[in-house]
Amino acid sequence: MTNESLLARRLDELYAIGAQPEGGTYRPLYSQAWVAALDRVERWFKDAGLSTHRDAVGNLWGRMTGGEEGKSIVTGSHIDTVRNGGRLDGALGIVAGLTAVESLQKERGKPRRTIEVVAICEEEGSPFNTTFWGSRAIIGDITHVDDRLAEAMRERGLTPDRVSGAARNDIDTYLELHIEQGAVLENAGMSVAVVSAIVGTAHLEVTVTGRPDHAGTTPMKLRRDAMAAAAAMIQAIEATARSLGDPAVATVGRIRAEPDQINVIPGRAVFTVDLRHADYGARRGLEERIRTACSAIAAERKLGLDIRVLQEKPPVAMHATVRELLWRAIRDCGSNAIDIVSGAGHDAQILAARCKVGMLFVPSIGGRSHCPDESTSPEHLELGTRVLARALEILAY
Amino acid sequence: MTNESLLARRLDELYAIGAQPEGGTYRPLYSQAWVAALDRVERWFKDAGLSTHRDAVGNLWGRMTGGEEGKSIVTGSHIDTVRNGGRLDGALGIVAGLTAVESLQKERGKPRRTIEVVAICEEEGSPFNTTFWGSRAIIGDITHVDDRLAEAMRERGLTPDRVSGAARNDIDTYLELHIEQGAVLENAGMSVAVVSAIVGTAHLEVTVTGRPDHAGTTPMKLRRDAMAAAAAMIQAIEATARSLGDPAVATVGRIRAEPDQINVIPGRAVFTVDLRHADYGARRGLEERIRTACSAIAAERKLGLDIRVLQEKPPVAMHATVRELLWRAIRDCGSNAIDIVSGAGHDAQILAARCKVGMLFVPSIGGRSHCPDESTSPEHLELGTRVLARALEILAY
Repeated sequence: MTNESLLARRLDELYAIGAQPEGGTYRPLYSQAWVAALDRVERWFKDAGLSTHRDAVGNLWGRMTGGEEGKSIVTGSHIDTVRNGGRLDGALGIVAGLTAVESLQKERGKPRRTIEVVAICEEEGSPFNTTFWGSRAIIGDITHVDDRLAEAMRERGLTPDRVSGAARNDIDTYLELHIEQGAVLENAGMSVAVVSAIVGTAHLEVTVTGRPDHAGTTPMKLRRDAMAAAAAMIQAIEATARSLGDPAVATVGRIRAEPDQINVIPGRAVFTVDLRHADYGARRGLEERIRTACSAIAAERKLGLDIRVLQEKPPVAMHATVRELLWRAIRDCGSNAIDIVSGAGHDAQILAARCKVGMLFVPSIGGRSHCPDESTSPEHLELGTRVLARALEILAY
Repeated sequence: MTNESLLARRLDELYAIGAQPEGGTYRPLYSQAWVAALDRVERWFKDAGLSTHRDAVGNLWGRMTGGEEGKSIVTGSHIDTVRNGGRLDGALGIVAGLTAVESLQKERGKPRRTIEVVAICEEEGSPFNTTFWGSRAIIGDITHVDDRLAEAMRERGLTPDRVSGAARNDIDTYLELHIEQGAVLENAGMSVAVVSAIVGTAHLEVTVTGRPDHAGTTPMKLRRDAMAAAAAMIQAIEATARSLGDPAVATVGRIRAEPDQINVIPGRAVFTVDLRHADYGARRGLEERIRTACSAIAAERKLGLDIRVLQEKPPVAMHATVRELLWRAIRDCGSNAIDIVSGAGHDAQILAARCKVGMLFVPSIGGRSHCPDESTSPEHLELGTRVLARALEILAY
């Protein structure tokens, strides 16, 4: 079987696990589909002769031990998906990492340095309000596991009281192949990119508090309608991001009105805001303008406003040595590349705290991602895997 | 025990059934709290010597048989509540009806005509997408029970295949005491109102369809964000209702974004609109303007739009003879009143199809309703109950 068809088959198998009736897949952290996907990957690892290990949070490691002592070369990606997610986000990095290691094993035998492939348990966010749960465990950043999450972990045979044991100090380099999830490569007519940095993301939760009243008997001018105010804020957030121009983006992805009754004026509305900009200062400026706009709307309507920061990450640069290595591997494979700033977050930005990190992107058709239409040509998937294998070869043989 | 303290005790008891940790009560159709409340009312009915009967949908009837043959005089209200609902909405009409009948029994003995008190199973809407489920069953308007609802009914010992048996052709007059749920009485400094008509309500469900995309990698100008468009529509809906002036009202009480992920641009947003106006033509005009505004926003943003009518009810006049009767009863009780158009929907608007209907309102403090703050002074509760008893006396003795 060619690498191209092996990649396709494995990606199809993973995509089917968690398939949703309305399209796409959904494998949130510790769900039934998540367990099934991890079991499948573990079987592949074992079939490839890798020794496997699940750590306390459920990261799955497949290890090909090298001839020399020393830190590991690691590749992989995350096994979880967003709701109605696509076939490649996360899955590609795991499948390509395994396929690359199998090729090297066949062509070059036992490596000098240990190579590991990792399926990271969660990167996309989860119903437990985690993000980067897997990579944060790897860098030893988790100090507390809340009760609901601990219970879910125990149901999956994991050990919340031993989370610190998931920390690794013996990783030399982490390499990840991922789809771009945007249209920069496609627009540039290029097949592969070396990531120079990952933009930081701010996640806010905005709570607007008004007064619940009867929808039929409360005149418009006497209302303190939290939902109408939230709508005005969402309009202002969109207008602010637009006015700053690319690459500023702001997204309201979740919203709920309370008490959530057709005939009751909402007394509370809660929504999330995802803010990004390649430049840290510009992103903070965007957040500041959004806070000001929301405060003005709440004040004008005499409503309560609370803005909570759920996550706040500065941009993270990829390691210079690893970027050079990836450029060399691309040229060795007879291709060319561009440098790119990732608008999406990735585990590499977390792992950068403990090891050298680098990322490769292959094009996303139409720039589509986080949806069932997510797709990349088979040639690009194969090229990305070949470059990854070459980079691992340079590092480990 | 005085009627005032008897009313208060019974209202307190019902309010405690379904009490929510965050305040208010919640007794949706066929819930555990709903069952408990109905059981409590049935015990009161029996203790008062009424013969009780539950029909196929769960309306509870308490009957004091009269000396003569003929159609019944009925009073009562609904037992269900909105989420985080108050102490009086629905509960008052049942408790006051029972208390009035007990007084008449004590003072006047057996009536000439049969009097019944009814606890109607659902009026507020329910998780089963019903509204006026109880009164619609009474007028024989239910032709179909969907599977999920039928299952819930069976779990409560009810008989979905015998819904037609709940229909009544032997009701002469239906009287209901209810809180105003607005501030007209309070502002007028009056203690009681005779309802002249109930405004019709239109309930719409608006679905906006865009395209789900990655929140970090999709530039603002390439987005087809269903949530941002929904926010613009909600703004337009509020502005339209405001511009028409009182008594036009429009409320967006429920909303959801899909796929409901913090880092995914919503590909779909669904929200409800509750529209009311005392004048039928004006309400249709309001709906038309809202449809036009939403269409323009969807077209400008190249999004799909679907507006579905969930409910559409014209205004319903109360029966002239019953209005006169209520005015007479009010004067007999030494009080005065005003006529009022109800902005809220009530079972009387459904029952009007089969019998004479009339309603009394007592003031809501601050106009508050559908919330834990819902309240009426004890004197007004007692006066309303006394007027109701006098009206029943004129009709049945």
